[in-house]
Amino acid sequence: MRSIDWVDDAVRMVDQTLLPGELVMLTVSDVPTMVADIKRLAVRGAPAIGVAGAFGVALAVRAHGTSGPGLDDAVRSLRDARPTAVNLARMVDRVAALASEGFERVLAEALTIRDEELAASISMGEYGADLIEELVGERSFRTMTICNTGGLATVERGTALAVIQTLFERGELAEALPLETRPLLQGGRLTAWELQQMGAPFRLIVDSAGPFLLSRGAADVVLTGADRIAANGDSANKIGTFSLALAARHAGVPFLIVAPESTVDMSTPSGDAIEIEDRGPDEVASALGTRIAPEGIDAINPAFDVTPAELITAIVTDRRVVRLDRGETLETVPLGDLRTTG
Amino acid sequence: MRSIDWVDDAVRMVDQTLLPGELVMLTVSDVPTMVADIKRLAVRGAPAIGVAGAFGVALAVRAHGTSGPGLDDAVRSLRDARPTAVNLARMVDRVAALASEGFERVLAEALTIRDEELAASISMGEYGADLIEELVGERSFRTMTICNTGGLATVERGTALAVIQTLFERGELAEALPLETRPLLQGGRLTAWELQQMGAPFRLIVDSAGPFLLSRGAADVVLTGADRIAANGDSANKIGTFSLALAARHAGVPFLIVAPESTVDMSTPSGDAIEIEDRGPDEVASALGTRIAPEGIDAINPAFDVTPAELITAIVTDRRVVRLDRGETLETVPLGDLRTTG
Repeated sequence: MRSIDWVDDAVRMVDQTLLPGELVMLTVSDVPTMVADIKRLAVRGAPAIGVAGAFGVALAVRAHGTSGPGLDDAVRSLRDARPTAVNLARMVDRVAALASEGFERVLAEALTIRDEELAASISMGEYGADLIEELVGERSFRTMTICNTGGLATVERGTALAVIQTLFERGELAEALPLETRPLLQGGRLTAWELQQMGAPFRLIVDSAGPFLLSRGAADVVLTGADRIAANGDSANKIGTFSLALAARHAGVPFLIVAPESTVDMSTPSGDAIEIEDRGPDEVASALGTRIAPEGIDAINPAFDVTPAELITAIVTDRRVVRLDRGETLETVPLGDLRTTG
Repeated sequence: MRSIDWVDDAVRMVDQTLLPGELVMLTVSDVPTMVADIKRLAVRGAPAIGVAGAFGVALAVRAHGTSGPGLDDAVRSLRDARPTAVNLARMVDRVAALASEGFERVLAEALTIRDEELAASISMGEYGADLIEELVGERSFRTMTICNTGGLATVERGTALAVIQTLFERGELAEALPLETRPLLQGGRLTAWELQQMGAPFRLIVDSAGPFLLSRGAADVVLTGADRIAANGDSANKIGTFSLALAARHAGVPFLIVAPESTVDMSTPSGDAIEIEDRGPDEVASALGTRIAPEGIDAINPAFDVTPAELITAIVTDRRVVRLDRGETLETVPLGDLRTTG
């Protein structure tokens, strides 16, 4: 199932705010609705938001024509719907540059972006699953992961979860162990739902159980996504990733970062240059709207952490595998081909 | 404030099920009410439950006299209120053995147990705070801790949190960083409330943020309680403790276990001999009654983990400090005196 697509002259996408309780497909036919849906997080995950923005530009050209202030306003509203989502602005700009060539051309470019995201997910799955077979040397794997890196965050399949899905399709997934991922619980809500949808064997765990279960041999490999990968391999990802990487090293278990090439940022030399955003105390003081802590307390709420390259076995992208454990670097390993299944 | 005490011919104790929303003091004057309150977790924490059971025997003797089937039934109902709480049975038996000497003698013994628990907390606080001054070599400390190890779990002050309180009273606590402690959130609910009550500076964090924040130098020392300490120093404690100990070692920060001597179990040679209880999927699938995960999922829910002795800097009890980092062991370090303040 695709989390976002173009169907019957409109965008069709999952309302992620209602998961895992309810699966509701939204049909979005105009730009203001798309902007509102992006803002209220009905669609989330950098690749999925980028595709939503690209389709949004097609809706804008259909409504406002190939130029003029109406089109400009609509495109701007899409670009600004999530100011920190770099991928959204990049994809909106790429499609809007073709507006003068008309709706069909714009839609074709948006569909190309959709297809590129899907191809990247398939390729990451193939590269990652082959690497795990090589590293672990078995044909049955217990995998641990954090946050939501599945089809909901992309178009279909995802990044780290795409690798787990590929293992499952190869008949090689013994068990997935998703961490619930406080404070926003993307693992407990979304990854658990995606694994359930694909029929994969899994058991949910609280975040602090991951490191201990690794020390007791509960998983053969740990896989996570990344928000940004610095030139030296240091990787920023959801808070909790560092703790898993440290425990994987202690347990002698491979730790893999799985993310598209667009995540690699060679202009950031190392993780020290990445500023850690603090999202404020409210998310920590409650869970899905239920108050946990006393009123008036303060919290530290880092949105993500940085895992140093020396704790990462390999970085897997849609175009290559970089074996940091063998001294390879993002500078020395050239881009390879996109992989396809079959 | 004492979480449990004997006031005006009755037991007076905090209803912990209503925290942190509401502070309600229960007055318990009969055994059936005490048994029900223990069962519904109005009182929790091994030392506090033991004191509740001891006072309960006094209530039983007052109601049923110094012997007979009525007394026997009442004592048995107290002992069985929490079958896995070894401390409850031990304290009930200790007081019940004096029933033939009458109510006043029984009550005096229960008050002695109360005083012993309080003295142990004071002593742990003194030993622990002195050790931290010695280890860190400063006079202002940022401390990280997990679960609830404060006065609510004992009579007053607690174990690891007693050390933090002692630092605070000495004017040496820069900040406490309690972990929320999923799945049951004892840190977010109870420790945050206790720190707020004592007016100590603190910020709450999600469990997976602890290890990363340690790697970024956010704390000078990590302190936790223990459910059981094996002869070689391996320590069983709330799930998440192992992860903190591993990260503390990585960050070069001292990691201390703080627990009364009664927690030391020389008949358990090492952590390998400690069976990890799994509490089932329901606690993981929800938080304070709010459903997180899809219906029908499975989970791994280890109630506690085991931290190996090699990751523990020192074990602090009410009677001694055992410096594992210097090669000392529970067998070689003799018991010392109970410490008092002032």
